[in-house]
Amino acid sequence: MGVGATLRADTVQADEPVDALAGLATLLRQDMTACNQAIVDRMDSPVELIPQLGAHIVAAGGKRLRPLLTLATARMCGYPAAPAALRHVNLAACVEFIHTATLLHDDVVDDSMLRRGLASANAVFGNKASVLVGDFLFARAFQLMVADGSLPVLAILSRAAATIAEGEVLQLATQNDLTTSEAQYLDVVMGKTAALFAAACQVGAVVADRPEAEEKALAEYGMKLGIAFQLVDDALDYAADQATLGKTVGDDFREGKLTLPVLVAYAAADDVERAFWHRTIADGSQTDADLDRAMAIMERRGAITATFERARGYAREAREALDVFPASEIRTLLQDVTEYTISRAY
Amino acid sequence: MGVGATLRADTVQADEPVDALAGLATLLRQDMTACNQAIVDRMDSPVELIPQLGAHIVAAGGKRLRPLLTLATARMCGYPAAPAALRHVNLAACVEFIHTATLLHDDVVDDSMLRRGLASANAVFGNKASVLVGDFLFARAFQLMVADGSLPVLAILSRAAATIAEGEVLQLATQNDLTTSEAQYLDVVMGKTAALFAAACQVGAVVADRPEAEEKALAEYGMKLGIAFQLVDDALDYAADQATLGKTVGDDFREGKLTLPVLVAYAAADDVERAFWHRTIADGSQTDADLDRAMAIMERRGAITATFERARGYAREAREALDVFPASEIRTLLQDVTEYTISRAY
Repeated sequence: MGVGATLRADTVQADEPVDALAGLATLLRQDMTACNQAIVDRMDSPVELIPQLGAHIVAAGGKRLRPLLTLATARMCGYPAAPAALRHVNLAACVEFIHTATLLHDDVVDDSMLRRGLASANAVFGNKASVLVGDFLFARAFQLMVADGSLPVLAILSRAAATIAEGEVLQLATQNDLTTSEAQYLDVVMGKTAALFAAACQVGAVVADRPEAEEKALAEYGMKLGIAFQLVDDALDYAADQATLGKTVGDDFREGKLTLPVLVAYAAADDVERAFWHRTIADGSQTDADLDRAMAIMERRGAITATFERARGYAREAREALDVFPASEIRTLLQDVTEYTISRAY
Repeated sequence: MGVGATLRADTVQADEPVDALAGLATLLRQDMTACNQAIVDRMDSPVELIPQLGAHIVAAGGKRLRPLLTLATARMCGYPAAPAALRHVNLAACVEFIHTATLLHDDVVDDSMLRRGLASANAVFGNKASVLVGDFLFARAFQLMVADGSLPVLAILSRAAATIAEGEVLQLATQNDLTTSEAQYLDVVMGKTAALFAAACQVGAVVADRPEAEEKALAEYGMKLGIAFQLVDDALDYAADQATLGKTVGDDFREGKLTLPVLVAYAAADDVERAFWHRTIADGSQTDADLDRAMAIMERRGAITATFERARGYAREAREALDVFPASEIRTLLQDVTEYTISRAY
């Protein structure tokens, strides 16, 4: 009986795919512990505000989904062959640093007050500290990558970092713009979210020195998984209850973000609804009752259902992208993680 | 008669050391043109807001001092041997991208409305765009470095980027804090300004494949030059006239920044002056007349003179750091640039 079977018996019910994430975390517990330690160690600085703000974010937790993907894909690809090899751990920490830096800047850009159910760093430490500590973490991520010494890894993650910023800028440029197309929306999603998922997974193949086809398959898996993840995120902003979501419901609506639920509802809108979307999203003129009304319209137009359906499609494609790898416990868990993205927090 | 002699006859009066910068720019005109082109080319993105905001910054000009240092030090070190070699040009563009990214974020953090005599990017495009385009430029800088392919260069510039962020965070942490020591102030200056000067110069030796002693000498030169530059900047914030400075005079005062002029004046203060500094800097309670009063106190206490004197000392050390290199036209110009940092815009 392998490790996987044990952990299932202990902590996971096999018929609940949401627990694939817990399964991965359990299977890779040692790596994750090492990764968390690397995150704490390398966030350190003689400038006290940096580890203070860092500790706030680390304490807020989060699922560490992205570094877990690096660790899991590296392991599925046969890394590490040597017991003491920790490249995947250090690179997983880089991935989390890049992610954390973007979270810090996002929360400033969005004026978010909640993150993972706790006060956001900008709410506690101010926007200025969040911008600058984000810059530090980003730079530190690159220092870690340089220490790792692989130019291909640096190329993958620096391209991802540029793509993330492009996605965020495009999101800003399309805010309040009801003429935004689904293609533009997908560009935003691929940029701001899926690019880092893709890079996190691709790096797993690179450290394990696997052929390009496997790199590509993992990048494809990560990209599709990331899109599914973001689509569900965008649906939950109109559908979750606040306690479960861990951030403020309706943030996207208040900011006039053109997410898929809005695009679907707007495309199907009658004249009255169209006027509603113009006032609330394009003109940004909202009253307290408008979020409930937006949610009711979305329900009527099947916008949340359609968004989840689309997410399920991407999750399926992500699952299939792993078919090129031989069957293994960890491949099964990575495939089941696609279901987690759909069923989480709902 | 070499290039240098020609350009002096054309554009520079040899007895005005401030023109060393113009002399360098003229001597390296081709490289600078290529560097400016690289900056424009690599700032491009399908997300239009990125080149738009980029063009605003490029149009605002600036002296391109940091990339000029990379080009000049590389050339002093004998690079390029081959006419078509452009590593120094691309790395100079990286240096300018990192600098521009920090400017964008600084202006957001400081709520600055003016930059180089024009409206700052955040004033025109908003804080959100400035944060995100800054992130893009930073990531793009790393992509360019990865394309260059030198891990030592990546190590130098990623460390500089982390040090810059640490300096900025330390500056934020010491804001309004009259117990700040001169040592802490120097840490801020070395971090936020001098680290990138040092890295920009050190890279010149690395691309030319020079021994470590020359790398160190150039890093030392850049560090001391950068400190002198920032000290003068801090003095000018209390001493320049606004039209010459190209940014708002008194910004540091209004933000309660603990710069050397304040530290010197505060150390020499009588009871009345001490109360003044506590109210205006520590408590941040200021009236319109306070900047003039601060300037008058500084005049009385010789705070500006002392800051310039200190800057001159660092400029001298920067000049001496180049003594290890054989005499050359370009060495002379680099040495004279230290005078430029002292006499600029005053």
